[in-house]
Amino acid sequence: MNRDPPNKQAKKLTGTEISSHNSRDSCWVIIHGRCYDVTEFLPEHPGGPKIILKYAGKDATEEYEPIHPPDTLDKYLDKSKHLGEVDMETVEKEEKEEDPEEEDRQKRIDKMPILEQCYNLMDFEAVARGVMKKTAWAYYSSGADDEITMRENHSAFHKIWFRPRVLVDVENIDFSTTMLGTPVSIPFYVTATALGKLGNPEGEVILTRGAHKHNVIQMIPTLASCSFDEIIDAAEGGQCQWLQLYVNKNRDITKKIIEHAEARGCKGLFITVDAPQLGRREKDMRSKFSDTGSNVQSTGGDNVDRSQGAARAISSFIDPSLSWKDIPWFLSVTKMPIILKGVQCVEDVIRAADVGVHGVVLSNHGGRQLDTARSGIEILAEVMPVLRERGLDKKIEVYIDGGVRRATDIIKALCLGAKGVGIGRPFLYAMSAYGLPGVDRAMQLLKDEMEMNMRLIGAARVEDLHPGLVDARALVAGHSVSAPTDTLGWRVYDPLAGPREKIVREGSKL
Amino acid sequence: MNRDPPNKQAKKLTGTEISSHNSRDSCWVIIHGRCYDVTEFLPEHPGGPKIILKYAGKDATEEYEPIHPPDTLDKYLDKSKHLGEVDMETVEKEEKEEDPEEEDRQKRIDKMPILEQCYNLMDFEAVARGVMKKTAWAYYSSGADDEITMRENHSAFHKIWFRPRVLVDVENIDFSTTMLGTPVSIPFYVTATALGKLGNPEGEVILTRGAHKHNVIQMIPTLASCSFDEIIDAAEGGQCQWLQLYVNKNRDITKKIIEHAEARGCKGLFITVDAPQLGRREKDMRSKFSDTGSNVQSTGGDNVDRSQGAARAISSFIDPSLSWKDIPWFLSVTKMPIILKGVQCVEDVIRAADVGVHGVVLSNHGGRQLDTARSGIEILAEVMPVLRERGLDKKIEVYIDGGVRRATDIIKALCLGAKGVGIGRPFLYAMSAYGLPGVDRAMQLLKDEMEMNMRLIGAARVEDLHPGLVDARALVAGHSVSAPTDTLGWRVYDPLAGPREKIVREGSKL
Amino acid sequence: MNRDPPNKQAKKLTGTEISSHNSRDSCWVIIHGRCYDVTEFLPEHPGGPKIILKYAGKDATEEYEPIHPPDTLDKYLDKSKHLGEVDMETVEKEEKEEDPEEEDRQKRIDKMPILEQCYNLMDFEAVARGVMKKTAWAYYSSGADDEITMRENHSAFHKIWFRPRVLVDVENIDFSTTMLGTPVSIPFYVTATALGKLGNPEGEVILTRGAHKHNVIQMIPTLASCSFDEIIDAAEGGQCQWLQLYVNKNRDITKKIIEHAEARGCKGLFITVDAPQLGRREKDMRSKFSDTGSNVQSTGGDNVDRSQGAARAISSFIDPSLSWKDIPWFLSVTKMPIILKGVQCVEDVIRAADVGVHGVVLSNHGGRQLDTARSGIEILAEVMPVLRERGLDKKIEVYIDGGVRRATDIIKALCLGAKGVGIGRPFLYAMSAYGLPGVDRAMQLLKDEMEMNMRLIGAARVEDLHPGLVDARALVAGHSVSAPTDTLGWRVYDPLAGPREKIVREGSKL
Amino acid sequence: MNRDPPNKQAKKLTGTEISSHNSRDSCWVIIHGRCYDVTEFLPEHPGGPKIILKYAGKDATEEYEPIHPPDTLDKYLDKSKHLGEVDMETVEKEEKEEDPEEEDRQKRIDKMPILEQCYNLMDFEAVARGVMKKTAWAYYSSGADDEITMRENHSAFHKIWFRPRVLVDVENIDFSTTMLGTPVSIPFYVTATALGKLGNPEGEVILTRGAHKHNVIQMIPTLASCSFDEIIDAAEGGQCQWLQLYVNKNRDITKKIIEHAEARGCKGLFITVDAPQLGRREKDMRSKFSDTGSNVQSTGGDNVDRSQGAARAISSFIDPSLSWKDIPWFLSVTKMPIILKGVQCVEDVIRAADVGVHGVVLSNHGGRQLDTARSGIEILAEVMPVLRERGLDKKIEVYIDGGVRRATDIIKALCLGAKGVGIGRPFLYAMSAYGLPGVDRAMQLLKDEMEMNMRLIGAARVEDLHPGLVDARALVAGHSVSAPTDTLGWRVYDPLAGPREKIVREGSKL
Repeated sequence: MNRDPPNKQAKKLTGTEISSHNSRDSCWVIIHGRCYDVTEFLPEHPGGPKIILKYAGKDATEEYEPIHPPDTLDKYLDKSKHLGEVDMETVEKEEKEEDPEEEDRQKRIDKMPILEQCYNLMDFEAVARGVMKKTAWAYYSSGADDEITMRENHSAFHKIWFRPRVLVDVENIDFSTTMLGTPVSIPFYVTATALGKLGNPEGEVILTRGAHKHNVIQMIPTLASCSFDEIIDAAEGGQCQWLQLYVNKNRDITKKIIEHAEARGCKGLFITVDAPQLGRREKDMRSKFSDTGSNVQSTGGDNVDRSQGAARAISSFIDPSLSWKDIPWFLSVTKMPIILKGVQCVEDVIRAADVGVHGVVLSNHGGRQLDTARSGIEILAEVMPVLRERGLDKKIEVYIDGGVRRATDIIKALCLGAKGVGIGRPFLYAMSAYGLPGVDRAMQLLKDEMEMNMRLIGAARVEDLHPGLVDARALVAGHSVSAPTDTLGWRVYDPLAGPREKIVREGSKL
Repeated sequence: MNRDPPNKQAKKLTGTEISSHNSRDSCWVIIHGRCYDVTEFLPEHPGGPKIILKYAGKDATEEYEPIHPPDTLDKYLDKSKHLGEVDMETVEKEEKEEDPEEEDRQKRIDKMPILEQCYNLMDFEAVARGVMKKTAWAYYSSGADDEITMRENHSAFHKIWFRPRVLVDVENIDFSTTMLGTPVSIPFYVTATALGKLGNPEGEVILTRGAHKHNVIQMIPTLASCSFDEIIDAAEGGQCQWLQLYVNKNRDITKKIIEHAEARGCKGLFITVDAPQLGRREKDMRSKFSDTGSNVQSTGGDNVDRSQGAARAISSFIDPSLSWKDIPWFLSVTKMPIILKGVQCVEDVIRAADVGVHGVVLSNHGGRQLDTARSGIEILAEVMPVLRERGLDKKIEVYIDGGVRRATDIIKALCLGAKGVGIGRPFLYAMSAYGLPGVDRAMQLLKDEMEMNMRLIGAARVEDLHPGLVDARALVAGHSVSAPTDTLGWRVYDPLAGPREKIVREGSKL
Repeated sequence: MNRDPPNKQAKKLTGTEISSHNSRDSCWVIIHGRCYDVTEFLPEHPGGPKIILKYAGKDATEEYEPIHPPDTLDKYLDKSKHLGEVDMETVEKEEKEEDPEEEDRQKRIDKMPILEQCYNLMDFEAVARGVMKKTAWAYYSSGADDEITMRENHSAFHKIWFRPRVLVDVENIDFSTTMLGTPVSIPFYVTATALGKLGNPEGEVILTRGAHKHNVIQMIPTLASCSFDEIIDAAEGGQCQWLQLYVNKNRDITKKIIEHAEARGCKGLFITVDAPQLGRREKDMRSKFSDTGSNVQSTGGDNVDRSQGAARAISSFIDPSLSWKDIPWFLSVTKMPIILKGVQCVEDVIRAADVGVHGVVLSNHGGRQLDTARSGIEILAEVMPVLRERGLDKKIEVYIDGGVRRATDIIKALCLGAKGVGIGRPFLYAMSAYGLPGVDRAMQLLKDEMEMNMRLIGAARVEDLHPGLVDARALVAGHSVSAPTDTLGWRVYDPLAGPREKIVREGSKL
Repeated sequence: MNRDPPNKQAKKLTGTEISSHNSRDSCWVIIHGRCYDVTEFLPEHPGGPKIILKYAGKDATEEYEPIHPPDTLDKYLDKSKHLGEVDMETVEKEEKEEDPEEEDRQKRIDKMPILEQCYNLMDFEAVARGVMKKTAWAYYSSGADDEITMRENHSAFHKIWFRPRVLVDVENIDFSTTMLGTPVSIPFYVTATALGKLGNPEGEVILTRGAHKHNVIQMIPTLASCSFDEIIDAAEGGQCQWLQLYVNKNRDITKKIIEHAEARGCKGLFITVDAPQLGRREKDMRSKFSDTGSNVQSTGGDNVDRSQGAARAISSFIDPSLSWKDIPWFLSVTKMPIILKGVQCVEDVIRAADVGVHGVVLSNHGGRQLDTARSGIEILAEVMPVLRERGLDKKIEVYIDGGVRRATDIIKALCLGAKGVGIGRPFLYAMSAYGLPGVDRAMQLLKDEMEMNMRLIGAARVEDLHPGLVDARALVAGHSVSAPTDTLGWRVYDPLAGPREKIVREGSKL
């Protein structure tokens, strides 16, 4: 039954051998058919030792895979701890507990709508919700606290209404533009989102290929499942990529990352400023995803409280002391344009312009950080009139992200003065449900909508979009919250009924 | 069994013969008992070749009927391709697949409410939704994108509240008025809507008869199921009709249409300006209505992407380059008053007045084009004060359409300055559910409501309506969108309960 | 078996005899055991002949009873048509069709909550909804068109929020006041509502008794089920009553009514000015209540279209030409103070003060007339500042009605300047569900709430209430209507879940 | 079977003996194994005699326990009425009726989520709702009238949105502050709530221990289940406590209470000014909790109407004549700082500053008193700008309570100028569901959220919070109430559907 040649077999470690190293004192794990001694690494693991110990003496590949870039072990574990290949036939397969939720999911996968049934970006989310693993869905879809900001992000666009112009020649529609000097086919970019392999085994490179196909820019996330170089390598034909950066407490690490990105051709550095600590996302916490970590920049020996769930664990390397006084240093270490991602009020936009960065992304981090923070589109409506008044609107490029689902959302942002918009989750959902064809179709749908809606608003080119084409007063008028409902009164009220059916008596047809 | 005389039989084509012409190379179809060779026409079909090939070698009548005016084949297919009569007895009947939805529909038709149970215009929609074929319902009822504008159209009227005057002599109510000089009995007209035969086999002529009975004007749609002349011929006793025009890229065709309409007595030319491209209506796309087309003005040889569904296919002949500079030409080719249908902001209304057209319809095309475009009634509230200030309110007539369901809606529009309102879908639904009696009752209900509400607002005549009778401030104050709900909080809240039932113990009555 | 004495029996009509008079040519009906020849009256019946013909030759008592005051036949049918007593034993009992709804209702009556379970005015409505006959419920509870105004009436109060004062001595609370000079124990009156016997066989006199018990004023409705004199006779100990008047086209009838009311001691004449025609109430129409009529003032021979349902039939005697020029006549024929009931904007209130009437009721007729008319409380907020500015607030008394359900509603109205409020439906519901004890409890609950809330707002007496105690800005800021919801987006959103239940495994307790 | 020694047995009263004293004429009850003659006390019982009579001749312990502090009998019943110990074995156990609701509750308790599943304060409420006794839940969770204010309290915070500052050094977050001079670890205190033993047999001392653990202040309620001294005794290590005071009609009692509190170390006197009478809470009344009373300060012989439910009964000793003129007396009898709890408009805050008190709590009593009273946070937004303008913001400390559930709520209150916030129900729910560990976790969750959100708003210390960090315009713009919905229209509307599932035919996998 064992068909391996004896000599090769001799070199490999066996499951039995490994299984005895199953404690804090000696902890070996199998990953991708190789064994590693992580005993000494346990206290340093950014995701906490507990999740590793769960797999002590066992195969941890399935858990490890989506949340660690492939070069993680080489980078963070001394070669001496790489114990060699394992004879996987000798490793006991764990019987998985029956999980009725998982069975239901498999049934949903069997009945998954065909790709052509997706007619808009919401549709990918509807499909992904049904077919993704629960923990992965929870990680992607969750927001901070009550998820009010997360939902506000899209609904804020519904406060803006169009004032289209008719009888404009819209035969030839051209919605191409430039972003930080790079020509793009449509004014959106793929913004950075973490842990792509939770949704698809290939991870972020799928987004790279989709971006290439549609000639849009991809922003590479610090917390990607693929390694930075994998994502860069997946780019084709001079395809433009940007780097999203969480700033490490250890500035040497940060500097190395920036220099490497610049060397590999990145055309923009987006410093995340809205996440000195990663947000509490309760849906994620409830989904028992608490054992995950993706951090690739551990400074080692830190002592963060890991009882607070994944988000805080992952974020342990991020420097919460990052401040305006650090910006000149960034400007000094790179020639890439620097953009602050996550600015949330006009005062900070002005300051950003003053310190000499090249742009800002008005963003609340997809509603994943501070709940009841305002939407990017609302901040935009606050920012642009002031920038114009001060003549700063030409000095820096202003982007927004959060809640963009329709081409009309993009058009509204551009009317109000944005240079472009970032889109994140929708492409993750398309990728999770359908892989690259999903991402391709999602982008194509946006282009179709864009052509249609540019025509209907009476604007043939991006330059034709201006504030007069929208009524955005509701956006700046604040946030209405209806008075609590009168539950007694509504219960008593007898709603109007429509016409009553004809009564067809039994046998009346005889 | 075959009782046809042999000589006549000899001339007819047989099903077997035709069925061999079932490919792109040779494609024959049967329509209304006659055979046509459409092989060469395939690439020119505005609805795309695919839908025709589905019926190659077969009887296509049922699919063809509702979406092509009867003169289509004569107009667009060379006589040489008219192959003659078919012996229908020799044509194999296709067995239709069992369709559980269709079975349910038949049951709903059996229990359809009697006409007298319809007390308002919403009721016809409720009935039609149940008894119409799914694809037909989807085509009529769908709107653009998220259908926000479609719903806003009616709900915008609920932002306007009445300030009635009491103790006015309202014994004799007269709500007749004129539109473009034509006297009408009530200030609405039947606006143009496409593909009437989807709802009723007779199509738009039913609306013609309803309009005649109630002395209101019908606007004839370009994309009617009936031919223009059929609709004109259905008019009686000097009944006034208008023409709705999609402008063809080929201006000769357009000119011919206009001249023909004028010759046949049309009293107004309504140029649609809000549809350089027909909208994406996802409900319609989902309903698999993708194979439909009704275009009667193909310019031939066009190469539009037909994968985008019916709407884009139908619209392929429409000229997206139509612009203000074309208006003088229209004014030069007809003596009919010209009205721009689909104007959506005050700037364009002023421009319309400046170029000398006779009116505008403030409309968003029933919410079928650009989503989050404003409602006609809201645009009206923006437009009229400016027109009055500039003395233009007497120069052009201003109409609105979209969302009108109650006489109170009509009265509100007139208070704010509209000359009249267009009503589309409600009559389609009434026609689809009940035919002409439905249309008749729908119009009568509006008249009954009108008399009642004119009395109650204290206005005996249309001239007595003025802005002081309404509070429309909410209409111009923008679009409130509530902050996202607190789902956790609401889930936890224990709603108030009413009085508890008496507990009747088993046997307590013994 | 027939135990009646032969001589008396001889005089009585028999069912057989009567049953032959069952047509338009000869139409006899039995009411309360007496037979009437209504053949000639048929065309004059304000409710139309159809409903009478349904009972031609039969016993019509059950249908007749609730909607005609007892003196109707004496007043409107010539004595010669009173054919005498009927031997009811000879009259065939009609078998009623089984009605599953009625069976359900009987079950609900069995489980009807005990009166002590009603803790607020809404509770009576909840109970009445379950135990009233469907047609009666429909008549009382229905409103005009979409019933938007009907619901707005109560919800408008929720736009007003309190600004209570603390540390005020509120040991002794006194909320008595005066209305048109009459002292009352609490600032509400029982407003006029039609057809009281639909809810309770005794009708409006129950309200008279309740009003007496609580020392509040009752306004007697023109369209009462009880006769005017019955209601007056039911009053005790100098109890104050007012008369609500629909003005008859025949002013002699009107004058007689007014003089009679004054002679019988009525202390106020409330002329309804918001009902030149009675409203369309679709719920009522759907409930097949179309055959009802209560009109006691037929001018005879009128020719109104009775196909429009009960409301229009009942209202046929009302004079739609009533106008401001008639007011001096009213002032000349009575010494009772005259109040216009149903005024709806400040312009008309000023005019009312100018013509010398003594008060107005700001009202939209319980939402039963013109839909999207404003609530009384909103009109009040518009009216009072203008009256105060012009010094008219002392000249006329201003009342409101519509939607009052809580003592807080009363207090809000008084803070804004109302002299008192009218309450209608809640007492009808209390009466329909529980008779006089229900009305008594409803009034007591209002008093309890009143004492409590006067304390909590920091006002010991009615005079202490003033506009500074409320924030009513939302009331005057117009009517917000949220943008239509994003149905796709909300469907996709995954609402937050609470803590997950512990999984208790089968057998874990063994 | 009876194993008690005969001599001891002889002294004890027997159940049989006691059971004959079961009437108004002679009423004995057993409490905690001792018998009391309460015949003469019946008319004095603040909760009314009825509830006592229900237990006449029986064991009343279970009913008595949660709502009377342990020293009640000693204080209010003459020693001569203490009849001595009871031989509990001779007392008949009452068979409880089967209660299906109680059975369901027991099942819910079995499946109660583990404490770690509670991720926010709402979660404790969700759990408590399921596992608390219905009457206890009703008492804690109910609000006044329609509970509009109760819900507004939390939802008002959703009108405030953040304007965070980025690139602020937030490495070290310190949200400690002081309240009335006492240092606390986080700016909230445990506010006073009544009847703690309804939720947990130990009562308020659990909150004392939780407050100690987290270094926050506890406000001791007048209507506690534990006695004042028990709560004081439970404090450890100089833990700060405040006294909440309902002012007794008998000022001597009040004075004694104040002096005792000061002597025992209380550091603040919070005089409740929003409850001259306790509110009507209908949910509470419906739950049949009508027989409860907790009043420990009966003035004896009062004659209040006890038919109005628990709240009014409990409140009978409270002095409704308390007014501004009493404040100097309070200032004269204590050196504790005096704070008015329940102030609700800026006029009264100014007055409070003028009379020399040390602070105010802007509060509507948890929505339990006057419905449609404004939320504390809204009043705060009204108050602070005026105080700042008059230079009074440094003179008095301003607190708010009501609806605080998230650290973001606390931060918003501090941004607007509050010194701190009171939190009540959430800790009651945590205590009711999980005891002290629940309270501990609830407080810890707030601290975790606080650290996170201070970071995310860009404020390292409490002093860094200021009005510019929030957009609170919606809070001061009044209370929007949407126009009533268009029930007909919404019923007819066909909501958008997502992608359709693939049809998997039976057997298609074969």
